[in-house]
Amino acid sequence: MALYQKPAAAKVFRDGREFPLEFGGSLPELTVAYETWGELNSSRDNAVLICPAFSAHSHARSHADDPNPGWWEEMIGANRGLDPERFFIICPSLLGSCYGTTGPLSQNPKTGEPYQGDFPEVSIKDITNAHVRLLDGLGISTLYGSVGGSMGGMQTLELAVSHPERVRRVASFSATTHTRAFTSMIRHVGRRAILMDPDFQGGFYGQRPPEKGLRLAREIGTIFYRSREEFNRRFSCRPVDPNRPPKLTENSFDFQNYLDHQAQKIVPIFDVNSYLRLSFAMDLHDLSHGHASLEAALDRIEAELLIVGVTQDRLIPIDEQLDLRDRLLAAGKTVHWREISSEVGHDAFLKEFDALGVLMREFF
Amino acid sequence: MALYQKPAAAKVFRDGREFPLEFGGSLPELTVAYETWGELNSSRDNAVLICPAFSAHSHARSHADDPNPGWWEEMIGANRGLDPERFFIICPSLLGSCYGTTGPLSQNPKTGEPYQGDFPEVSIKDITNAHVRLLDGLGISTLYGSVGGSMGGMQTLELAVSHPERVRRVASFSATTHTRAFTSMIRHVGRRAILMDPDFQGGFYGQRPPEKGLRLAREIGTIFYRSREEFNRRFSCRPVDPNRPPKLTENSFDFQNYLDHQAQKIVPIFDVNSYLRLSFAMDLHDLSHGHASLEAALDRIEAELLIVGVTQDRLIPIDEQLDLRDRLLAAGKTVHWREISSEVGHDAFLKEFDALGVLMREFF
Repeated sequence: MALYQKPAAAKVFRDGREFPLEFGGSLPELTVAYETWGELNSSRDNAVLICPAFSAHSHARSHADDPNPGWWEEMIGANRGLDPERFFIICPSLLGSCYGTTGPLSQNPKTGEPYQGDFPEVSIKDITNAHVRLLDGLGISTLYGSVGGSMGGMQTLELAVSHPERVRRVASFSATTHTRAFTSMIRHVGRRAILMDPDFQGGFYGQRPPEKGLRLAREIGTIFYRSREEFNRRFSCRPVDPNRPPKLTENSFDFQNYLDHQAQKIVPIFDVNSYLRLSFAMDLHDLSHGHASLEAALDRIEAELLIVGVTQDRLIPIDEQLDLRDRLLAAGKTVHWREISSEVGHDAFLKEFDALGVLMREFF
Repeated sequence: MALYQKPAAAKVFRDGREFPLEFGGSLPELTVAYETWGELNSSRDNAVLICPAFSAHSHARSHADDPNPGWWEEMIGANRGLDPERFFIICPSLLGSCYGTTGPLSQNPKTGEPYQGDFPEVSIKDITNAHVRLLDGLGISTLYGSVGGSMGGMQTLELAVSHPERVRRVASFSATTHTRAFTSMIRHVGRRAILMDPDFQGGFYGQRPPEKGLRLAREIGTIFYRSREEFNRRFSCRPVDPNRPPKLTENSFDFQNYLDHQAQKIVPIFDVNSYLRLSFAMDLHDLSHGHASLEAALDRIEAELLIVGVTQDRLIPIDEQLDLRDRLLAAGKTVHWREISSEVGHDAFLKEFDALGVLMREFF
């Protein structure tokens, strides 16, 4: 039994209105799973939206109703990046995900069956619009702030562009204005691994997902989530067992066991149809889409911004984050910039909680 | 019908002696396909060995018996890197390849059938030892020089270490002392793509090779053979057709067509069993293997060396080539070092013939 589902204590917001999609078509209705920490104050101006990364969901931190550690456990708490004593923190699951918000496992009202392979392509803008519907439902007109890393950073930037009146402070870790071809190529070969798996069945795999393809996609991704420096330090370039001839059909190197482990971990927690759609949404990410130009898009931003890049990031390298900063500065925005050095590279937003916590407390 | 076979006019050297392999076992006999340009002089001291790269073979340049352009066509000729008026140039196909030298398509004398999946793992040292058997057969005791790029550079360095008395000058483009974990990871995920293809059949696929897996392996490789700078300049980050909704099961981006094209090109020219073994041989590359240390291995070298690295190389990045240079210098060797800048990155040794030609003429 797959473990991917709505986190145990997530609340559910339902919006029966049609939900139009950026690249055409619409969903007949929208459900958003979300969790909250802290209390909304009487002036309703202390809300902070956490925008989840690719494989994340509403359960960012443990709480009384669900004591399991969250994916941003160490970012939330007293003396951490986001203090629930001060903020009303909201974290929704992503549109297109397998964690309770409308996605490929949701029931298609037209057929009464799960969408599976019929679920449409979604974009970062669509995901952001789903977040905004939730904010409407919660009666929050303007966020104190919004924060996210990687795909979450894309959402928080998109929110600042598409809905400038809805957010006063935006923190983006390891994100970009628009995805470049090189980064898309990496995700593309991961999706290809899934699409070539005979078990994929056009997305209608039911209870038998294309595990080999998903594992290989995750292996490819893992190479870019971390840094070359880390891998070359941690792993030997020599076969593990000097007394056993290396075999290309076996695991002869220690890094192969590491990649296997990373790959195996994702199988029970990520639905393949969701993986494909969220991966593709990142490739389609482009703040300029729907605007006259990237400059025109960025010009709409009203929020103050914190942009954080990681020196060793190989997926969205530091030069793209410097470019994001420079474009925001050129547009006359108030931008705080920090470059941090971390051997875990792109994954720093999931690991470097001390450094990011200080930055968030200063900024918020 | 697959096109992989011995190049049309390649000569064949046969050695009936057992051929021991570095990581155990042996081949009962050895065949080497090779081509030559120019004439061996009377003192037999003007021979130059070209060590082929991963997908290359004996046909480095066109000649009277085979007018098809070779894979190093523009490196060989008057006023080019290697002048056949001056040198006796030899280029063998690689042990383990599908181009006429003993490999998975060769007949296994024990069964009378092609080895296919039974062909053993080979190493850069094994490949180099096969080259040396050919030199023995040609009556060449000491080479004027040896040259290769990427996997060819590994061979030429290995030759200088394993058989120091056989070569006076060694030119290595974009190679390394030993393959690091990060670089191996990239090749590993490519091999995994092949191994997960149901058509692989443990290597006994006969006339129906696992094309999907091979194509995906080549797509992954292509991302690293060139540079991020090139891809981000050449390819749009936006879907090709603004009037058509992007689909994750289709080619929505122009880089996808490019990768498809690169992948499709390799299918008719590379046997999958050869691909796997030569890929694995690069991961196993380690000049120190069989010696007390890397220092002890490099200390054996008698040749003068030209080491060339490419600033934008993403597969064997420039820092590894600087490390190679520094280790050679520390060992007291005569080393000429050049760093060249090329947007084609690791593939510079297959493209930058003007720059490399000048360097080779100066060095040789």
